[in-house]
Amino acid sequence: SSSSRGFSGIYSFLTSLQDTNTHTQPTWHISKSYYCDYFWTDKKDPQGTTSVAGFEVLLQKQLKGKQMQKEMAEFIRERIKIEEEYAKNLSKLSQSPLAAQEEGTLGEAWAQLKRSCHDEAEVHLKFSNKLQCEVEKPLLTFRDNFKKELKKYDHHIIDLRKQLASRFAGVEKARKALADRQKDLEVKTQQLDIKHMNKHEEDIKKARRKSTQAGDDLMHNVDLYNRAQSKWFEEMVTTSLELERLEVERVEMIRQNLRQYTTLRHETDMFNQSTVEPVDQLLQSVDPARDRELWVREHKTGELRPVDMDI
Amino acid sequence: SSSSRGFSGIYSFLTSLQDTNTHTQPTWHISKSYYCDYFWTDKKDPQGTTSVAGFEVLLQKQLKGKQMQKEMAEFIRERIKIEEEYAKNLSKLSQSPLAAQEEGTLGEAWAQLKRSCHDEAEVHLKFSNKLQCEVEKPLLTFRDNFKKELKKYDHHIIDLRKQLASRFAGVEKARKALADRQKDLEVKTQQLDIKHMNKHEEDIKKARRKSTQAGDDLMHNVDLYNRAQSKWFEEMVTTSLELERLEVERVEMIRQNLRQYTTLRHETDMFNQSTVEPVDQLLQSVDPARDRELWVREHKTGELRPVDMDI
Repeated sequence: SSSSRGFSGIYSFLTSLQDTNTHTQPTWHISKSYYCDYFWTDKKDPQGTTSVAGFEVLLQKQLKGKQMQKEMAEFIRERIKIEEEYAKNLSKLSQSPLAAQEEGTLGEAWAQLKRSCHDEAEVHLKFSNKLQCEVEKPLLTFRDNFKKELKKYDHHIIDLRKQLASRFAGVEKARKALADRQKDLEVKTQQLDIKHMNKHEEDIKKARRKSTQAGDDLMHNVDLYNRAQSKWFEEMVTTSLELERLEVERVEMIRQNLRQYTTLRHETDMFNQSTVEPVDQLLQSVDPARDRELWVREHKTGELRPVDMDI
Repeated sequence: SSSSRGFSGIYSFLTSLQDTNTHTQPTWHISKSYYCDYFWTDKKDPQGTTSVAGFEVLLQKQLKGKQMQKEMAEFIRERIKIEEEYAKNLSKLSQSPLAAQEEGTLGEAWAQLKRSCHDEAEVHLKFSNKLQCEVEKPLLTFRDNFKKELKKYDHHIIDLRKQLASRFAGVEKARKALADRQKDLEVKTQQLDIKHMNKHEEDIKKARRKSTQAGDDLMHNVDLYNRAQSKWFEEMVTTSLELERLEVERVEMIRQNLRQYTTLRHETDMFNQSTVEPVDQLLQSVDPARDRELWVREHKTGELRPVDMDI
């Protein structure tokens, strides 16, 4: 926070410098909204008391992306649980003894209908297994160590900002020192001491020398500042580009995994449809006459028909 | 039970008659196993103590068919419950806030994926509703009053059997009476009573008359028996044909309903597949560059780039 405040100090300085500067500000890229064009400034909170570095906003975006990835995996996990429950219920139902006593061709068709419920269960179980391997797992494991990576970027940029703030303080200090020395020279030059002329001229020479040194010192500090700024600038650009690349990779990874989800959904519905075919076939073959024949053969009591009594 | 025993008495009589009878036994239908060819005889249980009328076996078959219909409806009810549970779970999942903060084109695709879970829920809910109306309900309501109908058939046939047994008893009684009269006549004819010749001749004439009457009586009873048998026979054939028809109707009804089940399953899988289409489309449109643009536009902190300090 103190470095942020120091840094916003730099920006107010830069802003004022910008106003007086006749240089035009070159834009890095004209379109495509690259990160490195838009996150130089600190973000002030509404009250205006604290601020967050632009780079922090970029890092937060990355962390949020990782969180989204994790939440999507959780969603898939929930779907897996639902599918497993459905499969379990269908499988249990398929073992039901209801109407098991139906015989003949109708009985066969009914038995196949029950069996098809188990086939459906298998389809959904397969779906849930594939969801786990091909969608949930990749979402969970992509960039396992990402937070550590981001922390490295964060600390590096923070260090460079601290150094820049420190160099800026150095420039301010040198500027003040120069102002003091120049004032001292001016005062001494304006004084008139007829009595002690020699000493006075010595004093002026001394004051002039100190003023020159202070000027050199200021220029040295400005040079240090500019180098620090250059390093920070370069790191910001490099890291921004990397974060952009990482984000594109994340979006593509997610897109791919979600496509796998829809592929599995398509597959599942198709496999599920095929479980009905054998039932349709056996229903086609249902033959009441045949069933009567089979039943009569097994359950007939006797063919002896009554005849008239004859005396 | 007593009527059954009486009836099996008829059958042992018939069997013995059959053995002596020179008539060939016409078969009603040569093939196709019509009920009315095979259920004349009572079914003896293994111990041989009691028996069940062949017609009872046919009735039991009908009752069992009704029971099968009911059990199939129960099975469908279970399936309905499973589908409702699945739909409820998917619908709840679709409202999950997981990864709701994902923005841009990827965020839209993700939101649609969640929405598609709700669409799937709707598909399965529709399936369960149609299962109820188009499969369960018809199975439950088909021949609501069937047991009453069957009872009517049962009682009618039982009455005819009782009457037949009673006529049979009548024949036996008349036969015995004839035998007695004939024996009496024989005895009286062989007696020689020279002393009371006129009375003796009167006695013989009387005995002969009684014998003739007993003969007429026997023939009358036989005629009554044959009529009773004819009625029972006719009713058996008519009712058997009706029960056959009802059974064919039952099998066809069930087949139709189960076909409706498979039709609904096909439909459901197809509707389910279509819920994935919009997700595929939005995944197609995922554009990392666009997403970056949108995000930067909203979250940028400032474009002011640092420039070198110049003194």
